[in-house]
Amino acid sequence: MEIENIDVHSYPNSEKIYMKGKQYPINVAMRRINLTPTVKVVDGEKIIHENAPVYVYDTSSVYTDPAVKTDINAGIPRIRESWIARRDDIEQLEAITSEYGRQREQDKSLDNIRFAKRYAPRRAKEGKAITQMALARQGIITPEMEYVAIRENMNAEALGIKSHITPELVREEVASGRAVIPANINHPEAEPMIIGRKFLVKLNTNIGNSALSSGIEEEVNKAVWSCYWGGDTLMDLSTGENIHETREWIIRNCPVPMGTVPIYQALEKVNGDVRALTWELYRDTLIEQAEQGVDYFTIHAGALRAHADLINERLTGIVSRGGSIMTQWAVMHNEENFLYTHFDEICEILAQYDVAVSLGDGLRPGSIHDANDRSQFMELDVLGELTGIAWKHNVQVLIEGPGHVPMHKIQENMERQVDKCHEAPFYTLGPLTTDIAPGYDHITSAIGAAQIAWMGTAMICYVTPKEHLALPNLEDVRNGVITYKIAAHAADIAKGHPGAQVRDDALSKARFEFRWKDQFNLSLDPARARQYYVESHKADDRFCTMCGPNFCAMRISQSVCEETTKNK
Amino acid sequence: MEIENIDVHSYPNSEKIYMKGKQYPINVAMRRINLTPTVKVVDGEKIIHENAPVYVYDTSSVYTDPAVKTDINAGIPRIRESWIARRDDIEQLEAITSEYGRQREQDKSLDNIRFAKRYAPRRAKEGKAITQMALARQGIITPEMEYVAIRENMNAEALGIKSHITPELVREEVASGRAVIPANINHPEAEPMIIGRKFLVKLNTNIGNSALSSGIEEEVNKAVWSCYWGGDTLMDLSTGENIHETREWIIRNCPVPMGTVPIYQALEKVNGDVRALTWELYRDTLIEQAEQGVDYFTIHAGALRAHADLINERLTGIVSRGGSIMTQWAVMHNEENFLYTHFDEICEILAQYDVAVSLGDGLRPGSIHDANDRSQFMELDVLGELTGIAWKHNVQVLIEGPGHVPMHKIQENMERQVDKCHEAPFYTLGPLTTDIAPGYDHITSAIGAAQIAWMGTAMICYVTPKEHLALPNLEDVRNGVITYKIAAHAADIAKGHPGAQVRDDALSKARFEFRWKDQFNLSLDPARARQYYVESHKADDRFCTMCGPNFCAMRISQSVCEETTKNK
Repeated sequence: MEIENIDVHSYPNSEKIYMKGKQYPINVAMRRINLTPTVKVVDGEKIIHENAPVYVYDTSSVYTDPAVKTDINAGIPRIRESWIARRDDIEQLEAITSEYGRQREQDKSLDNIRFAKRYAPRRAKEGKAITQMALARQGIITPEMEYVAIRENMNAEALGIKSHITPELVREEVASGRAVIPANINHPEAEPMIIGRKFLVKLNTNIGNSALSSGIEEEVNKAVWSCYWGGDTLMDLSTGENIHETREWIIRNCPVPMGTVPIYQALEKVNGDVRALTWELYRDTLIEQAEQGVDYFTIHAGALRAHADLINERLTGIVSRGGSIMTQWAVMHNEENFLYTHFDEICEILAQYDVAVSLGDGLRPGSIHDANDRSQFMELDVLGELTGIAWKHNVQVLIEGPGHVPMHKIQENMERQVDKCHEAPFYTLGPLTTDIAPGYDHITSAIGAAQIAWMGTAMICYVTPKEHLALPNLEDVRNGVITYKIAAHAADIAKGHPGAQVRDDALSKARFEFRWKDQFNLSLDPARARQYYVESHKADDRFCTMCGPNFCAMRISQSVCEETTKNK
Repeated sequence: MEIENIDVHSYPNSEKIYMKGKQYPINVAMRRINLTPTVKVVDGEKIIHENAPVYVYDTSSVYTDPAVKTDINAGIPRIRESWIARRDDIEQLEAITSEYGRQREQDKSLDNIRFAKRYAPRRAKEGKAITQMALARQGIITPEMEYVAIRENMNAEALGIKSHITPELVREEVASGRAVIPANINHPEAEPMIIGRKFLVKLNTNIGNSALSSGIEEEVNKAVWSCYWGGDTLMDLSTGENIHETREWIIRNCPVPMGTVPIYQALEKVNGDVRALTWELYRDTLIEQAEQGVDYFTIHAGALRAHADLINERLTGIVSRGGSIMTQWAVMHNEENFLYTHFDEICEILAQYDVAVSLGDGLRPGSIHDANDRSQFMELDVLGELTGIAWKHNVQVLIEGPGHVPMHKIQENMERQVDKCHEAPFYTLGPLTTDIAPGYDHITSAIGAAQIAWMGTAMICYVTPKEHLALPNLEDVRNGVITYKIAAHAADIAKGHPGAQVRDDALSKARFEFRWKDQFNLSLDPARARQYYVESHKADDRFCTMCGPNFCAMRISQSVCEETTKNK
């Protein structure tokens, strides 16, 4: 099995560099884009000005490091392995704890699809509070915290821009619950990253086969592909066969935190029969996945039995898969959602592995019509209550948000979430600002995502052009990720993130000086920028085909500059 | 010569309909999307609910009317011909007034590329104020005003939604200068439309060959293509050969108002030598184009000699072609921009044909770095001054705006424009909210366009994926137009335009009920939505490939609805 479509040289003129920690012996990966000099001819003399390189946040990990030979059969380097091994609050187990995990392990028929190498799972020692939140609350700056502090300052440090983002700020934000570092101790391959409103806006991508399509190889390819283009976290939403084995392959090759929706697998275990779901089955699934290394679980514990009666008020009912499953279960049994009634126990499990909980918005609106309705906001109140419970267990919390929301109703979502959920980071899907553009919902939603991210949403979940219509292929994933990188970056600039605008300025300078290659190399998708240019380009490079030689504003503008300077 | 790629049946299940005027015998074109009924089976019995059709604003004119046979050699029907012929303030001239126009007419070598049919130009009778603004100020509701009032209410009327948009409101808005109806009396082919903050947000598309590419046929195709997808106005930015003849072809086949930047052609007339530009040459160009039927001129009269000295403060100088040309001219001659010094005369000419002026923002920022800088805002002050002059002549005014602006600086643009330019409609290019995504600038800019449109910008100028890199092809035009339809519609919903959300609600209902075809037909790009679906679709249509049969939230949600309803 091999990663297709990835070429470590695809980011031209870029170097993988590693910044060292001060407190810990850590190496924080970044990408440095080297630029060509500016060459001017003044009075017949060539004057050369160097252009400083630009440092960019890099989620592609070893996949773009020519010094590392990757092999998906072996998995990627486990950079946090030694950090974790050193801790005395964590123990290595002799065997898998979950019943289902053991079954799969013993099933010989799965040998040919199993990831070969096995790692014994780790867990908190009895009575130990091991999560990043627990440590932060004790005043401890962990290697993960120092890592993200350095990572967030990629340009600030190099350019001497004063940044407020320090390891101590990271600790404070994690301690208060305002930020989350998803870092399951069983996923040491993941490079630490932080999700919180004071940091760079992050983007999540979804992959996963449905029963109808897509195999293990394709999913691993999509995972790596998503990281390559800039996905900060990855949710595996697989619902087909061999979920357990597929997940193992992805995690062992995944350099970013990975999330799942455990109820999907629980439902597969009962062959899609919602009525047959039980807490015990779900519990075993949580442990199974936690020991594989899933970094955060989406849990739809806020969709209560009482909410089911409100669905008839809606145009599009429930559009969250997890929300619809739990609501149906509650209605069928006429009982409360077992994720809600067992939430304390859920948190106890999550705390042992430092799995973060992403409180699912099972009643998120699925249409402009249903935005900000009472079902949605009643559930949000419950998510706030659950946040308090999770934090008691030192479990890190994300709050999931909509969905479909018209622009004038976005702000209310953000403000209410901050208020009701005690500033836990908001993690939204879009929102889509209109329903009328299937085939273009990466765009309808990027408009909403940029706005809500600027207002303080910490992570935005990407939407691909195929949303509502089909599963995305690799090209759709690329389009979805780049679109969301745009939304996130636009918000970072608007929020004034230290050094965020450095890349814009460098690219614009390159554009103005007709340094085309630098312009491409600095862009989010150098390959596409170059392709569009090359397809229509002819000879002279002091203008582009848009305006032609007589009408190039930038060229005329440069002569104006020269003339007005001369006149002085 | 034939229009490629257009199929009048491409909007499936749609009908071209015409709503009649009450005051005038006018027929206002719209598209009605007919829907299939909702079919439910309750206790074994089939229950059928009809779904009301949805009316959509339609810019495609006769090109999607199966009752009209179009032939681009003949041009499209001249729907305003009789309205104009009836007026006693307008006269038909015996010959073309402009010197250049006459030269071209007499040049036998152009016979093979000339649009065959010739129409004598019309002009205001001596001393008559004929513009829509002049008439509005006299309290007259014109056929154009009634037309746009009906057109803006496409769903409100059919569904009995009370709308504040009446012919009288239109008249008031045009009289005050807060709205513009671009309607050159020599372009009777154009269906009236209105640009103003109280109306639907409009989108402009740019076409035009540069010296390097693209011929007449291709440009006419692009014009029709743009209208087909939803462009509300069209700017012909051609700078290559045979601009005059190309323009004639486009206008005679163009059902939407067309704009140009006359300085481009003036510069072609002096072979690209900026120094050789003169007022007399420019004046003749204005008359030439006004008599062909151009509905609005972008005029960079606000870029003053004094501003040139500020360009050195910028990262990307001047990125407006017109702005750079006029600034260079002013610097070369050390004289004031002749468009500024002759602005009164310009308005006198425009008023005779009812050509609107679109005051160009020659100093719009070309990068995030340069947004909202003093060059930009000093020019805006001048545009405000020029607005007052144009209105004295009853010339309708649009104000062009940026460009590249980060999200947190967008609001200041809008508020300042309203304040300095006395509420004349704002017409912005994007703005692009980051510089780092060449190849995706339709998206970087749609994020900004949606925001500024919501805040009150009346028309947004589209950006295609090829912006900064190359000229757009037909597919780029389609992507650009749909992206901007999304931004405009998202803003219409946020602004609460009467009936705007009807289409969203109808589409979402169709989605929830698995009426796939209705979902496609209601979308902005039915062909693409269908294509994405069909490519991955198999058999059963009660779910899509995204979630598979066990995980279809909408299907589960429907059963929950049925169960909770039963329990009551």
